[in-house]
Amino acid sequence: MKRIPYKTYLPEEKLPQAWYNVRADMADQPAPMIHPGTHEPMTAEQLTPIFIEECCRQETDNTTRYIDIPGPVMDYYRTYRPSPLCRAYHLEKALDTPAKIYYKFEGNNTSGSHKLNSAIAQAYYAKKQGLEFLATETGAGQWGTALSMACAYMDIELRVYMVKGSMMQKPYRKTVMETYGANVFASPSETTSVGRKLLAEYPDTTGSLGCAISEAIEAALSKGSDCRYALGSVLNHVLLHQSVVGLEAKTAMETLDEYPDLVIGCAGGGSNLGGLMSPFIQDKLLGKRAPKFIAVEPASCPSLTRGRYAYDFGDTGCTTPLLKMYTLSSGYIPHPNHAGGLRFHGMSPILSKLRHDGVIDARAVPQKAVFEAAALFAKVETILPAPESSHAIRVAIDEALECKKTGETKTILFGLSGTGYFDMTAYSSFLDGSMTDYVPTDEDLEKAFATLPKA
Amino acid sequence: MKRIPYKTYLPEEKLPQAWYNVRADMADQPAPMIHPGTHEPMTAEQLTPIFIEECCRQETDNTTRYIDIPGPVMDYYRTYRPSPLCRAYHLEKALDTPAKIYYKFEGNNTSGSHKLNSAIAQAYYAKKQGLEFLATETGAGQWGTALSMACAYMDIELRVYMVKGSMMQKPYRKTVMETYGANVFASPSETTSVGRKLLAEYPDTTGSLGCAISEAIEAALSKGSDCRYALGSVLNHVLLHQSVVGLEAKTAMETLDEYPDLVIGCAGGGSNLGGLMSPFIQDKLLGKRAPKFIAVEPASCPSLTRGRYAYDFGDTGCTTPLLKMYTLSSGYIPHPNHAGGLRFHGMSPILSKLRHDGVIDARAVPQKAVFEAAALFAKVETILPAPESSHAIRVAIDEALECKKTGETKTILFGLSGTGYFDMTAYSSFLDGSMTDYVPTDEDLEKAFATLPKA
Repeated sequence: MKRIPYKTYLPEEKLPQAWYNVRADMADQPAPMIHPGTHEPMTAEQLTPIFIEECCRQETDNTTRYIDIPGPVMDYYRTYRPSPLCRAYHLEKALDTPAKIYYKFEGNNTSGSHKLNSAIAQAYYAKKQGLEFLATETGAGQWGTALSMACAYMDIELRVYMVKGSMMQKPYRKTVMETYGANVFASPSETTSVGRKLLAEYPDTTGSLGCAISEAIEAALSKGSDCRYALGSVLNHVLLHQSVVGLEAKTAMETLDEYPDLVIGCAGGGSNLGGLMSPFIQDKLLGKRAPKFIAVEPASCPSLTRGRYAYDFGDTGCTTPLLKMYTLSSGYIPHPNHAGGLRFHGMSPILSKLRHDGVIDARAVPQKAVFEAAALFAKVETILPAPESSHAIRVAIDEALECKKTGETKTILFGLSGTGYFDMTAYSSFLDGSMTDYVPTDEDLEKAFATLPKA
Repeated sequence: MKRIPYKTYLPEEKLPQAWYNVRADMADQPAPMIHPGTHEPMTAEQLTPIFIEECCRQETDNTTRYIDIPGPVMDYYRTYRPSPLCRAYHLEKALDTPAKIYYKFEGNNTSGSHKLNSAIAQAYYAKKQGLEFLATETGAGQWGTALSMACAYMDIELRVYMVKGSMMQKPYRKTVMETYGANVFASPSETTSVGRKLLAEYPDTTGSLGCAISEAIEAALSKGSDCRYALGSVLNHVLLHQSVVGLEAKTAMETLDEYPDLVIGCAGGGSNLGGLMSPFIQDKLLGKRAPKFIAVEPASCPSLTRGRYAYDFGDTGCTTPLLKMYTLSSGYIPHPNHAGGLRFHGMSPILSKLRHDGVIDARAVPQKAVFEAAALFAKVETILPAPESSHAIRVAIDEALECKKTGETKTILFGLSGTGYFDMTAYSSFLDGSMTDYVPTDEDLEKAFATLPKA
């Protein structure tokens, strides 16, 4: 039998040359983005004032199965890809489980996560379109860092609205982005009308991702015709770019004669989860052997497990087109206690549809249990995981322990989407015992649902 | 012609199974450690009250060419090794140089640097000896993090004395170490007599590596027979463990049919430099084709370029055995403005001897020029480098630009020993213009030399 190495890196010639568009294999398509006024589906053309042109095309392309990765994007990918497929021998031993645990590790780049995969694609398309500025928001900071890196490489000016609470927790994230030339503002800020309005009403607010999105969109629109807005998750074109994660993982497992019984990923807006899972979801959609899928979300922001499947805005300011997704409503303010990202009220429309159709399962986990899993993982597998990714670790461990009970030798694959190097405030609160769990009551959610736009 | 990939990862079966001991090939041995009182060479037995037994054996072993890497250390290495040998295509393009630039990147692990290579070896030997505690110091923080990780894995209690100035600049480094279970103290501290004495004399001092070493040794000795002191650089056994870096790099270059004309590394205590260079130095010592070697040090702490080759203490408290090395004297206080590590007053006795014999060259570079190189590298090669490693980048760029002038197509290999994720305060001062250069005057150095121990 072949000895499975700790780490499998695909050789350059085996790297994916095209992204995989899961929509092309979905018999039942995700519902289209609609205009909040007319309730008509948005065309690519209608999206171009906000988003990069090629991204708009990809956003609305439900039929092209594979889309070539442009040469300059491939060149950039090769500076940090392939990412390793890791066999968690040490974790298996620590758990004394018969399960085989694999993880795809996306943290070995300066952005610290998978976010760079879409950032460089968007920056490249922006450059090709002749744009000179991009604006974006960032919550935990990975996306902002990734887009800063990509824009530095492509010589594009970037403005980042960073959720204020997150900036206070992670001052160095800002410096990293600035090192790559970005202009970073704490959100809500005085630079937009959305920000000023919110600050007037709640001067002490620490912000939210939804609000930062509103500010970035406003900034992009007000800046003129050579500026656009870039988003790091949720949207279809982002999931498309992230498919490189799953394509690499699948090919790497093939070279090991392995195939997962279970694929686990953390879910905030869905970029990591969708990227890792979609090439395996293809097998399921085509009726082949396929794994079971588990999306893991925080109990404090449980869109997939307790949200409504409904049309909603992507931002607090209600300025985006409407997306059909599992949502807690754009009026839901995630609890500030929760560490890291995954605090978005909604979920990728593609993943929402797949969840609605029973293709993927979802599970919500409390924060302290997540950090317990993270600490064990750090000790035995040596990597200090991002709080977001640790949600997936938690469930991977739970499933491996279940295998120990039942004696099953399942093959588990999870996404280790990033590292926690800039999340030490969260680890600190875990270590000193000040971290708490938060789970919204049904009443909290009902109150939020009441703010959903009328169908 | 073979296409050189951006990244070359050795397959697991090609990983080095033994460390290389460069002393075995040196016709002229480095001078032995001597006792400060008797001036007699120290035996392994005399070192064992301070250091881990097997490390003492390795420290004084000048004849065994290859020393097997123990199985459990190999198991740990495989969680983060091999590290990639990277072809800097983007940097070459940005410089428009005919030179081929390679770098061996050691930053893809949670400690953020090569330090883990020796940390896990020392922790393993400590465990094997039945020790329950280790004590150490850390300057920039990489070594302390690495040993924390290794001790967590081996279930050994660890106490880390972190240079106070560094801890203030990098609060999150402390949290990382604590996440791995270490007890971290700002040095000078009230927990040792050396620390108390220094605090009484200079209450506002931000500490130094030399002082932190003294405190860690005192803590180890006072703790009793199941505790020892561990050092992350300078000593022979540390260079031995770090040879894994150069062995991997050499094998990887062989698989590409490449061989360097020039090997460049940053030099603080010498662990990174010695590790990367020693397998290539072997070629030179054996009279084969060999590269030119450049050790790069900060102009603010120029031991190899402006120091004396003399016996000196390794610490400020003058508690270590005497080491024959290039030194600015243990009384030299490195300028606080200087960012990152490399602030040690001395240098590895092995490298000092090789420098003295003309085997390796040395160059000192000013800080701002180093950060300029770092910023360019980060932009085009995407990795945010550690300030220490950026010294090597600076000289690699200078040499590549020289090739552009002369038209030479040299093959350059440099060591990218770590990432700068925890050094954002330094980057911040570079970005806002508050960073300054500092070069000691000859008078400054003469004053320091006067404190050298009498021969």
